[in-house]
Amino acid sequence: MENKYVYSFKEGKKEMKDLLGGKGANLAEMTNIGLPVPPGFTITTSACIEFYEGNKDLWENLLDQVKTYLKKLEEELGKSFSSEENPLLVSVRSGAVISMPGMMDTILNLGLNDISVEGLAKSTGNERFAYDSYRRFIQMFSDVAMEIPKVRFDHLLEKMKEEKGVELDTELDGKDLKVLVNKYKEVYLEEMKEEFPQDPMKQLELAIKAVFKSWSNPRAVIYRKLHNIPDSLGTAVNVQSMVYGNMGETSGTGVAFTRNPATGENKIFGEYLINAQGEDVVAGIRTPNHISELKDMMPEIYDEFIKYTHILEEHYKDMQDIEFTIENKKLYILQTRNGKRTTQAAIKIATDLVKEGLIGKEEAILRVNPNDLNQLLHPNFDQKKLESSQVIAKGLAASPGAASGKVYFNAQDIVEASQRGEKSILVRLETSPEDIEGMVLSEGILTARGGMTSHAAVVARGMGKCCVAGCSEIRVDEENKIIRTQDLTIKEGDYISLDGSTGIVYLGEIEKVQPSLSGSFGEFMSWVDEIRTMKVRTNADTPKDAAQALEFGAEGIGLCRTEHMFFDSERIGSVRRMIVANSLRERKSALDELLPVQRKDFYEIYKVMEGRPVTVRLLDPPLHEFIPNKEEDIKNLAESMSIEYQDLVDRIEELKEFNPMLGHRGCRLAVTYPEIYRMQVRAIIEAAIDIKEEGFEEIYPEIMIPLVGHIEELKYVKNQLLEEINLVFEERGNKVNYMIGTMLEVPRAAITSDEIATEAEFFSFGTNDLTQMGFGYSRDDASKFLDEYMNKGIFKESPFEAIDRKGIGKLMEISIELGKKTRPDIKLGICGEHGGEPSSVEFCHSIGLDYVSCSPFRVPIAKLAAAQASIK
Amino acid sequence: MENKYVYSFKEGKKEMKDLLGGKGANLAEMTNIGLPVPPGFTITTSACIEFYEGNKDLWENLLDQVKTYLKKLEEELGKSFSSEENPLLVSVRSGAVISMPGMMDTILNLGLNDISVEGLAKSTGNERFAYDSYRRFIQMFSDVAMEIPKVRFDHLLEKMKEEKGVELDTELDGKDLKVLVNKYKEVYLEEMKEEFPQDPMKQLELAIKAVFKSWSNPRAVIYRKLHNIPDSLGTAVNVQSMVYGNMGETSGTGVAFTRNPATGENKIFGEYLINAQGEDVVAGIRTPNHISELKDMMPEIYDEFIKYTHILEEHYKDMQDIEFTIENKKLYILQTRNGKRTTQAAIKIATDLVKEGLIGKEEAILRVNPNDLNQLLHPNFDQKKLESSQVIAKGLAASPGAASGKVYFNAQDIVEASQRGEKSILVRLETSPEDIEGMVLSEGILTARGGMTSHAAVVARGMGKCCVAGCSEIRVDEENKIIRTQDLTIKEGDYISLDGSTGIVYLGEIEKVQPSLSGSFGEFMSWVDEIRTMKVRTNADTPKDAAQALEFGAEGIGLCRTEHMFFDSERIGSVRRMIVANSLRERKSALDELLPVQRKDFYEIYKVMEGRPVTVRLLDPPLHEFIPNKEEDIKNLAESMSIEYQDLVDRIEELKEFNPMLGHRGCRLAVTYPEIYRMQVRAIIEAAIDIKEEGFEEIYPEIMIPLVGHIEELKYVKNQLLEEINLVFEERGNKVNYMIGTMLEVPRAAITSDEIATEAEFFSFGTNDLTQMGFGYSRDDASKFLDEYMNKGIFKESPFEAIDRKGIGKLMEISIELGKKTRPDIKLGICGEHGGEPSSVEFCHSIGLDYVSCSPFRVPIAKLAAAQASIK
Repeated sequence: MENKYVYSFKEGKKEMKDLLGGKGANLAEMTNIGLPVPPGFTITTSACIEFYEGNKDLWENLLDQVKTYLKKLEEELGKSFSSEENPLLVSVRSGAVISMPGMMDTILNLGLNDISVEGLAKSTGNERFAYDSYRRFIQMFSDVAMEIPKVRFDHLLEKMKEEKGVELDTELDGKDLKVLVNKYKEVYLEEMKEEFPQDPMKQLELAIKAVFKSWSNPRAVIYRKLHNIPDSLGTAVNVQSMVYGNMGETSGTGVAFTRNPATGENKIFGEYLINAQGEDVVAGIRTPNHISELKDMMPEIYDEFIKYTHILEEHYKDMQDIEFTIENKKLYILQTRNGKRTTQAAIKIATDLVKEGLIGKEEAILRVNPNDLNQLLHPNFDQKKLESSQVIAKGLAASPGAASGKVYFNAQDIVEASQRGEKSILVRLETSPEDIEGMVLSEGILTARGGMTSHAAVVARGMGKCCVAGCSEIRVDEENKIIRTQDLTIKEGDYISLDGSTGIVYLGEIEKVQPSLSGSFGEFMSWVDEIRTMKVRTNADTPKDAAQALEFGAEGIGLCRTEHMFFDSERIGSVRRMIVANSLRERKSALDELLPVQRKDFYEIYKVMEGRPVTVRLLDPPLHEFIPNKEEDIKNLAESMSIEYQDLVDRIEELKEFNPMLGHRGCRLAVTYPEIYRMQVRAIIEAAIDIKEEGFEEIYPEIMIPLVGHIEELKYVKNQLLEEINLVFEERGNKVNYMIGTMLEVPRAAITSDEIATEAEFFSFGTNDLTQMGFGYSRDDASKFLDEYMNKGIFKESPFEAIDRKGIGKLMEISIELGKKTRPDIKLGICGEHGGEPSSVEFCHSIGLDYVSCSPFRVPIAKLAAAQASIK
Repeated sequence: MENKYVYSFKEGKKEMKDLLGGKGANLAEMTNIGLPVPPGFTITTSACIEFYEGNKDLWENLLDQVKTYLKKLEEELGKSFSSEENPLLVSVRSGAVISMPGMMDTILNLGLNDISVEGLAKSTGNERFAYDSYRRFIQMFSDVAMEIPKVRFDHLLEKMKEEKGVELDTELDGKDLKVLVNKYKEVYLEEMKEEFPQDPMKQLELAIKAVFKSWSNPRAVIYRKLHNIPDSLGTAVNVQSMVYGNMGETSGTGVAFTRNPATGENKIFGEYLINAQGEDVVAGIRTPNHISELKDMMPEIYDEFIKYTHILEEHYKDMQDIEFTIENKKLYILQTRNGKRTTQAAIKIATDLVKEGLIGKEEAILRVNPNDLNQLLHPNFDQKKLESSQVIAKGLAASPGAASGKVYFNAQDIVEASQRGEKSILVRLETSPEDIEGMVLSEGILTARGGMTSHAAVVARGMGKCCVAGCSEIRVDEENKIIRTQDLTIKEGDYISLDGSTGIVYLGEIEKVQPSLSGSFGEFMSWVDEIRTMKVRTNADTPKDAAQALEFGAEGIGLCRTEHMFFDSERIGSVRRMIVANSLRERKSALDELLPVQRKDFYEIYKVMEGRPVTVRLLDPPLHEFIPNKEEDIKNLAESMSIEYQDLVDRIEELKEFNPMLGHRGCRLAVTYPEIYRMQVRAIIEAAIDIKEEGFEEIYPEIMIPLVGHIEELKYVKNQLLEEINLVFEERGNKVNYMIGTMLEVPRAAITSDEIATEAEFFSFGTNDLTQMGFGYSRDDASKFLDEYMNKGIFKESPFEAIDRKGIGKLMEISIELGKKTRPDIKLGICGEHGGEPSSVEFCHSIGLDYVSCSPFRVPIAKLAAAQASIK
């Protein structure tokens, strides 16, 4: 069979997207379900591919097919090209398989020439309209097909308006436009050394070629590179008969959503304009009417339209965004597509569609983008206020939410501002664990350095606190307490606002709107829970975080970081004494002070968790994180601890590291100072026994040893823990169940996890560190060059955001395979930042993890992603 | 069959070491080849194991067998226990499978009692000798078998000497000793509440039990833990009839090496004493005679002894260290073992043995410990001068050699000292690339921080320069230019000496001896080259290093680090301009200045290498390493570059990183600034074309891209290089062959090396970084906690010294397997520090690397290790 390059709309269907492109397939689909679509045909993507494989010219076979279909079109419509009475005019539009909005070219009103322009004038009774259309066509055709600069035509138009002393195009009359048409044709002749083509078939040929060529224009090529669309797909070309909404009071055009895209309410929502073209609705020069008014104005048309909306919704099984035109009381549907909507609306619509029997629960779950739930969970700025606010800079959208407050540059000032009842924003070059108290008390955090997984970002997300990180456009001068930007200086106490969902920093205070979890949300999440097989836990360090996470549906704690408890101002003294201790005895005495407070921490968290699993990670960060840096602070500390300033300086110097991320931290600390973990495990177990003895629901603590790289270090540390646990059991004459496991975050541990699993009862993947060490990227430094990687298309996304499946994911798979060889029932989870990122959650499901753990505010997101993964 | 627990020396052989222990097996072997060994028998290690499995007592079956063998011994010797005429006396010695010198117990003269002491006096005609032996036996038996403190007996001896007014034990006569024996027996009675056992069989039973028990004494347990010897092996017990060299002028004792252990000369070397026991030779109270004098004194004995030395050498096929005793003109051989020797001797002996037909070349190669070659390649301190020098501190033996010089604390001062003609030692907290010039000009380097793979250690080894690193016992005050230790202060200009092979730092200047490569060395190394299958290249950054390495037999350059060339004082200005450049244009102009000098570098190295392969690594370290840190230096730099001080400070601040090891370095620099690698690759290729056009042996540069973790970044960087290379080819109208490959040093690259190999023509394992990232250990910080790991027995050795086979080695194996899937002929090498460490070289051979690359001074070591690996 000869290659078929052309399909009329009647021959296609929505499943033929690959061949007909998205637009062509949808036009065909609508045609075939009986909707009034202006007839036309589609030239296939295969033709485009052949065009590029050949000498980039159209060939006879293709042109023959086009002519055949054109003939059919003329017959169907009773119109013909170059008719003096009732000319056929068409639009020529690109239509790729994957939508590339605005990337390729369109030509309208093709078919106009010196003859048919008169025919158009006659058939519409509107000479001005006809010549205006002709003028626009010449310009568009010259620009798109012939690459004649538009400005040459614009220039003539401006000149004409000047001569006439008018301001608007619409003030020019038919005669003026006729003159202009002639001038335009002269430009064409001058530029092309030939007359403007009068043969519509010639016009069409050039237009098709232009659309094909636009597939490889630079902006389309870049767009495809960015969106990972193969160059080999090609574009289709849609040739469709023109209809006009601007042919008088019985014509019009509009856009409507079948349901409310803001709330999801099942009520048509849209606007229209009488005697107007599509652009006029968008341009906003005239105020459009609400769609409901059409009911009074053109009741039959309205009813017909409503009927079509039902047909389309039932057919596409989703809320539709429909474009229509009324030409002389005849309704045409020009486009339909799934409508964009807010998250609230998405959930409402999806649950309604299930109830209406249009889709199943699984389909409903797939309809909502997990990340979009953020919109529901955090307060946001009032959109209208936002638009009139001054943007200062843009950083990384590190932790969603909206925050306004007075600028302060250190934790101490935030504490004082909080005591004065002020709302504040903590601004730092970068944060460190010392800033925790300031972070807790501030409304939001802004840092000039660090990436999506910098300290500020990680901690802020854990707290559900708004954070903009790595905002390199600003210069933070902590000493003088000012922020400098290109053109302004913000001092301590000035107001700024942060949008953690966009990364934008605004000057001044902006009003906020609280999110409301609509009624559908609960129902939707209950379906999510039904379908999901992977558990979702939370990272929580305090009873407050834990309670918040439970509200969001967390099923346990996957990561309780004991070090965050160390920063409390009541405890930091003991912690520091422990660190600078010169002898085991001194260190133990400091640890003795910490024991009761840690025990209380765990006790309270256990109580909140009511029997759910709790994974506690033993001390992880390098000790120097707990020690102050500034001379003054060190002096104060030395004084408060009654030790010599110089001794303290020496000890701090000793603790300094070239690469702290690869330094003395995690279980390495426990090899040097076993007494620290012993204190912690004692607190964990004693609290669990307390809970049991007081009759609360029993807790089985999962004790997690961080940064294990070698079976021998795990053995050493585990033996210390077991000794201490057994001591506690003896002392208390009571026991509790517990597990001992390890973070899987060191590459060496991943590839020797068969050995590690001999001692570890569970693995929890620490994908932050696994990514850092696997790639050799410091998460605090990498944003500098990772930006460049993404700009240059080397990476599609940062491996700190979504798990790098081919590399880090492979390490995870290897370690699961090896680990299960040794211990088939080993419990597997993830507690890195990736645990709350939908595509990573999907990956975790696919490799068989038992649970993911993420910050409280991401629990619903992770749950939805897990349910979607189950379905897929 | 009943268990056999006892073997006479006639029943054993050297292959039965597991059962009889090392000493027992050797005594049996000598007995069976006809040497005059005092007869005896061995109680097996199995008996010891059973002893520990049971109730730690001797059992009947065992005791029966002992009695049977004792009876045989009495018959053979015509002596008997408790004889008044000719009593049998025996020694009871431990003898483990793996020698544990001094760890377990020995009892001599067992069998003495109130009767046999008279028999001994009679048979020797020497009452004093008999009672002295009895006295010693009681003390030894009481101490070893009964745990009665030795001091109780020593005390009585001292008192007796006081009473007699004498100073030496030998001044006491037979009567005195008889009295003392009675007093000793009283002590025994007092302590044990029973009489000293008079029954020799009872004595033997207690002695055997004591030896068994000594297997688990604390020092033996610790020794085994340290040396990784299983506790389950147990020890054998050797019961041997006593012979005496102190029975008059016809008796004597001595020790001899069959060849000279210092030079390897094939000439007997040893000493003896007439009328003496073994201890007397060692104690050095009397000056022993040279073994050759025995020829005149006892010609038959001498000839007999020489005959035995030949038998033993031929039998053991190695130089022997022999102990002998002459008892009344009868020669006994008491022990033989392979003699310890210097490296020079080891090589001479091994090559001589091959020529003598005793061993093959392969065996000769296995006889020399690769690391010992260090002794031959570096000058060493005069051993005698060393012993009288004051030790200041001990650090890590980071780079072998010996250095004396005046202490200076920065590179500039070293440069000035060198201009004054002074020898100097560079002392730093830690070195950085800025110190290179000082390192080059100094005699040796001492640092207070950093491990075996710290900057100082790595660079020093590369230069073959003596270095003691991580010497934490000293406090370096760079500002005030002093070193402080516990009890002294060393100022700038004071002399110190470093021993890079031991890590010891001495006060003052110490004389050195130059090593001489003996004639055998060349012959030995030629055999090594014959047998070796893996190539050995060198890490060399300069023509001088390259020439040095060729002298040592390097077969190419495996790692030429281009950054070291950047520190030359003539170039650093351009390098810095390149780094702080604000625009591409400025950066290119700085790079244009660097191009000719880099081209000259490569040209000269190529010329030295005469056609051998040269692997050039493109710029690797983070840019901030090239920028000064101190305010003054920054000011000078800003001035010299005519830029604002504050701008330079800002740029330096921008370059700072939290974890530079995981930061913006390696190929990541080339993603951000492709022009840097383009300049380097242009220099590499232009120099190769110059070499070719000038008629020298052609060089095929192997261009190595560092720190690749992802195929996409490799592709991006490689494309840049290819573009530049093709430009050069066009410009020059000439081509050269080259390869483009990558360092394999990022864990992610290792596990995705099937992808990496699509673009890389070779992999060179960078095991320093692979170890750092695989373990998550910063090599600059890890020594702190790795020491603890080794102290606690968690690690046997630092993974930065020998490749961690189970983890990092596994990563290497995985990447080789994957890489070969894609590119079966991929070239594989290693250029990390491990490339010169023998056990790592063996591992590299076992996993099929084509070559190892190491610093010039380690080339012979790596070659020997590679040959040994081939043989194994």
